[in-house]
Amino acid sequence: MGENAARSIRDKVCVVGVGESEYGRHGSIARPEFQLAIEAILAACNDAGLDPRRLNGFASYANDRNDAIRIATALGVEQTAFNNMHWGGGGGGVAGAVANAAAAIIAGYADYVVVYRALAQGQFRRFGQASVTGRSRGQDMWRLAAGLLTPPQRFALPIRRYMYEYGVTSAQLGLIAVASYKHAQHNPRAIMNGRPITIEDHQNSRMIADPLRLYDCCQETDGAAAVILTTPERARDLRRPLVYLAGAAQGAGYREGAMSDNRPDYTTAAFSDVARRLYASAGMGPEEIDVAQIYENFTGLVLMAMEDFGLCGRGEAGRWVEGGRIEHQAVADTGAPHAGALPINTSGGNLAEAYTHGFELMVEATRQLNGTATLPVEGARTSLLVSGPGVAPASALILHN
Amino acid sequence: MGENAARSIRDKVCVVGVGESEYGRHGSIARPEFQLAIEAILAACNDAGLDPRRLNGFASYANDRNDAIRIATALGVEQTAFNNMHWGGGGGGVAGAVANAAAAIIAGYADYVVVYRALAQGQFRRFGQASVTGRSRGQDMWRLAAGLLTPPQRFALPIRRYMYEYGVTSAQLGLIAVASYKHAQHNPRAIMNGRPITIEDHQNSRMIADPLRLYDCCQETDGAAAVILTTPERARDLRRPLVYLAGAAQGAGYREGAMSDNRPDYTTAAFSDVARRLYASAGMGPEEIDVAQIYENFTGLVLMAMEDFGLCGRGEAGRWVEGGRIEHQAVADTGAPHAGALPINTSGGNLAEAYTHGFELMVEATRQLNGTATLPVEGARTSLLVSGPGVAPASALILHN
Repeated sequence: MGENAARSIRDKVCVVGVGESEYGRHGSIARPEFQLAIEAILAACNDAGLDPRRLNGFASYANDRNDAIRIATALGVEQTAFNNMHWGGGGGGVAGAVANAAAAIIAGYADYVVVYRALAQGQFRRFGQASVTGRSRGQDMWRLAAGLLTPPQRFALPIRRYMYEYGVTSAQLGLIAVASYKHAQHNPRAIMNGRPITIEDHQNSRMIADPLRLYDCCQETDGAAAVILTTPERARDLRRPLVYLAGAAQGAGYREGAMSDNRPDYTTAAFSDVARRLYASAGMGPEEIDVAQIYENFTGLVLMAMEDFGLCGRGEAGRWVEGGRIEHQAVADTGAPHAGALPINTSGGNLAEAYTHGFELMVEATRQLNGTATLPVEGARTSLLVSGPGVAPASALILHN
Repeated sequence: MGENAARSIRDKVCVVGVGESEYGRHGSIARPEFQLAIEAILAACNDAGLDPRRLNGFASYANDRNDAIRIATALGVEQTAFNNMHWGGGGGGVAGAVANAAAAIIAGYADYVVVYRALAQGQFRRFGQASVTGRSRGQDMWRLAAGLLTPPQRFALPIRRYMYEYGVTSAQLGLIAVASYKHAQHNPRAIMNGRPITIEDHQNSRMIADPLRLYDCCQETDGAAAVILTTPERARDLRRPLVYLAGAAQGAGYREGAMSDNRPDYTTAAFSDVARRLYASAGMGPEEIDVAQIYENFTGLVLMAMEDFGLCGRGEAGRWVEGGRIEHQAVADTGAPHAGALPINTSGGNLAEAYTHGFELMVEATRQLNGTATLPVEGARTSLLVSGPGVAPASALILHN
């Protein structure tokens, strides 16, 4: 299924600009979410060296509230030609939104597509707040009856099962957070810049939903992020070095999706077929990945996703992340990628930069290849983005330069 | 913008199956909307001769409530590979949803994509009901303050302006309804089958929002409709004669979209650039269209859309639809398309078949070319679908056989 992807998308689309609004803790930014979206899009246009009025495609995911047509009108766009939403809730759609926008470039519907996500949790609902309303229905009712009111409560169960099956420890989960916070100290945009943590801080942080401690959970923040896609031909006239979309995949398996409380295997992040199709579409394997951004809703799911994408063996991620292997410094120490090291979440990501529903990870995946990262991985040629572990439909993509 | 569409999509995707659930007046069908979606999808699979478990892409528009991943699980699909929502409310997305799904086929993301819309107004809110809630905001507040509580009230204004500018009469609006009801008499699926109307019935029907009478307004119904897309290579192994996607376009102009109460020209259905890009992508012009399905939220907007798509001159649609030119019989009388006749809404459409947010028009556009229409237009080789006049982002596509 989708096996012809390799010959259909590789190197047909470039990411030419990235940008974001100010990032702040939930409730700290008074400007409307709509304005944050505009700020991120204008920043991405400025990064690309593109007049925003030339944007003619608009894409997002997770039912972004900032309507494409109103955004286009606010930007002064004469004609939109593509309007698109990856279908699915949560952070599973980061790469899917980009991939679907890329398809519109390939199909010739639009010339310059901006993909964005604006999410001001301080202006709407904090995702971590329990919410039981008259609108709750379907599988939500089963969760609520079991006391699973919030995402940490819900994801604590499969993560605990994963830890039990493979002997993964809380301290190994904590290493994901420690790496993100270390990377964020180099990133002036990061909300946690200036606030490093140690593994002891992680171990001493309060329990949110056993086994998830405070530092195992993503932030709740205000902000927006955006990237711009176009054809390689048009990209050559713009400002940044070329960053190509090598491959992309999205989806979910039977019962791995909306029914994820009832799926056959709790020890994966529901990515097996997405990973296989991703590598097939890009014509490369996990051994060729130089740097990775892996969506951290919760640290445990990052370990599971690392295994799903073959970055280490099944059940080995807990031990693999020890010894600083996932930190930027590991590559700096060895002088090149792949000497047993794979830096992940190099901007700080959802845990320590900002939680734009993971879209800051897409921005960072691009920056790692066009010379604008705050903590560039030396010699990196390929950049992996993995979206929304445990949230289906999930998605992933690979960029290269 | 999007000028390379012609070489990018023409003849790369086929519509291989169509189907629908039972159609009924709002509240007349007790089965859940989700089940209606499944029924329509299974009917489309049966029509194509395709095992539903081979579907691996799912697409819709207007925030369809019937989540792709849950639909896939209910169908027993092993792996989804594409999940997509055309971004925009209302019926502007019918062709856009199909076009975006076609892009996924072209990009190789998925092999068989089903596009569907399920809408049971009897189980949720009737679109024609005034609704003022605490969630009303933005431009809605301006409309509400002006007493524009419902779609007929809102669209009455631009339609009245259009009638004033070009001397269009209420009876000319009524001819759109008369044609749809005539066609529905041949369609056993149509809710208005067995209930023909005359122009006198239209003129005597009660005023909903001047100048819109009862028969100028679309129905409020329960039902679902679906089509299946795949590559021409795969289509050859299926059951029906090949129907190709010739071209597609979507979008909106500056202030023609969400700001449509404040747009520069009230006498068009906001389609000028969509029409131009559609014909460019298909490599043909309006003179080559043999049969057309034009979304009838309200009859007046059908006239405006006919002008926007060049099916007659600007300001001429009112006179053009006289003399039965838009009725199936006109072609039957002359023996071929184009002898001054263009049948529109040949299944009865939103007015007289069912209001699946216009998706029954996509089904009929396909049936006109694969030999399964209840009222086939003799010799038709090209089929135009125009979505959601006055509702942006709008969209349109052309099929051919």
